[in-house]
Amino acid sequence: MKQKRLAVVLVEPQGALNIGSVSRAMLNFGVSDLRLVNPQVDHLSHDARLMSVKAVSVLENARVFSSLDEALADCSVSFGTTRRFGQYREDLKHPDEAALFLLPIAQQQPVALVFGREDKGLFTSELDLCQHFITIPTNAELPSMNLAQAVVLCLYEVKKAEGKLANRQHGRKKLAENAELEAMFQHMKQAMINIGYLNPQNPEHILRTFRRVLGRAGLNPREVSILRGLFNQIDLYSEKKKSRRGSRN
Amino acid sequence: MKQKRLAVVLVEPQGALNIGSVSRAMLNFGVSDLRLVNPQVDHLSHDARLMSVKAVSVLENARVFSSLDEALADCSVSFGTTRRFGQYREDLKHPDEAALFLLPIAQQQPVALVFGREDKGLFTSELDLCQHFITIPTNAELPSMNLAQAVVLCLYEVKKAEGKLANRQHGRKKLAENAELEAMFQHMKQAMINIGYLNPQNPEHILRTFRRVLGRAGLNPREVSILRGLFNQIDLYSEKKKSRRGSRN
Repeated sequence: MKQKRLAVVLVEPQGALNIGSVSRAMLNFGVSDLRLVNPQVDHLSHDARLMSVKAVSVLENARVFSSLDEALADCSVSFGTTRRFGQYREDLKHPDEAALFLLPIAQQQPVALVFGREDKGLFTSELDLCQHFITIPTNAELPSMNLAQAVVLCLYEVKKAEGKLANRQHGRKKLAENAELEAMFQHMKQAMINIGYLNPQNPEHILRTFRRVLGRAGLNPREVSILRGLFNQIDLYSEKKKSRRGSRN
Repeated sequence: MKQKRLAVVLVEPQGALNIGSVSRAMLNFGVSDLRLVNPQVDHLSHDARLMSVKAVSVLENARVFSSLDEALADCSVSFGTTRRFGQYREDLKHPDEAALFLLPIAQQQPVALVFGREDKGLFTSELDLCQHFITIPTNAELPSMNLAQAVVLCLYEVKKAEGKLANRQHGRKKLAENAELEAMFQHMKQAMINIGYLNPQNPEHILRTFRRVLGRAGLNPREVSILRGLFNQIDLYSEKKKSRRGSRN
């Protein structure tokens, strides 16, 4: 799904590699509206294109503004990213909270995610133009993140919030039904007794470990039939042995 | 909080800037164990140091291995990252699901997040060494992410999961180490070939299903030894059969 009403705004970005990386991260998550406020480097340079990989269109369609308020003119809601915990501390949202908040708005009206300079972030006067604030919960030992990585975390959370992830399929296969599983375990048990692996007086003890392991794994029907294939082969072996034994007696 | 038992493994990384960016992302989220498998560039070069900013210590302490199985030898659970949705990819987890799963294990034993080459990702033989798989739900228009950005998303989710999982231990048993698992799979393979269940020309195909099933289950050392007991018994059977055959010839 594309987020047509979500803009990424970079204020005075200093690195062409970073701008290129941001454009790629945007397209990874279906966002294409890039706005640059007074960029300190050429966003169409070789370095920027190199890092953008297949997102050169995002760079080429980026709009350049001379001030943040111009860049935000059409946006209903702007989220400023900051590491500073000053007097507005109570309004700081983590990226997942911000995503859940902004997404319903972005269905209807333009929303901006605003990122500051690589070294100094956003100034207070710039944060003043935003209505909400995002902070990423990094480690105290090295709190400052790479610009493009901060962008990618925020966009990833927006994508997650889309609810596409609500029904997590990932192509998971249907699990085998209990009757299939029990038939398999009975087959396993008999085959394992036949080859002398399970004690026929108390086969359940060790079999239980197999039940636990395969139960945790969650078998699909294909996997059940592959396991049965193994025990069929073991049967074949022990039958041959029996019949050979029989013929020699 | 530091994640002392979580390793980031990069397989044949090609870009020094990327390795540097990964090291910074790691320290942003309190992770410092970087392992490089056959890196194609110098991870201590100027470019790598430049992008690592204040995480040069991560680069300097990185360990270099000549193969992935060496890099994973002490890890109980490895998560391979992949974009491929083939027939063995039904177990793909998103980063948040993977984080919730791996974190309780990483409290006790080393866990690895494995990332492939910038252009080609991880090969199937490398994914075979992993028990779980992570995919990042990117947009179809540009699914391929920058390496360091993929790393940062996974580590960010681990950091988020820390808060969620504080009380979910329930006496989980220690998992078997990768070296034990690999020895078991080699034993399985040979035993299954001996009884004619696996095609000696292409044993890996069906074996891969067993790897997936047992990988999902997460085996502890006792379970590994019970499985090996089964294959010892099968060995005994196929040896007997061979020797009997020999004696009749």
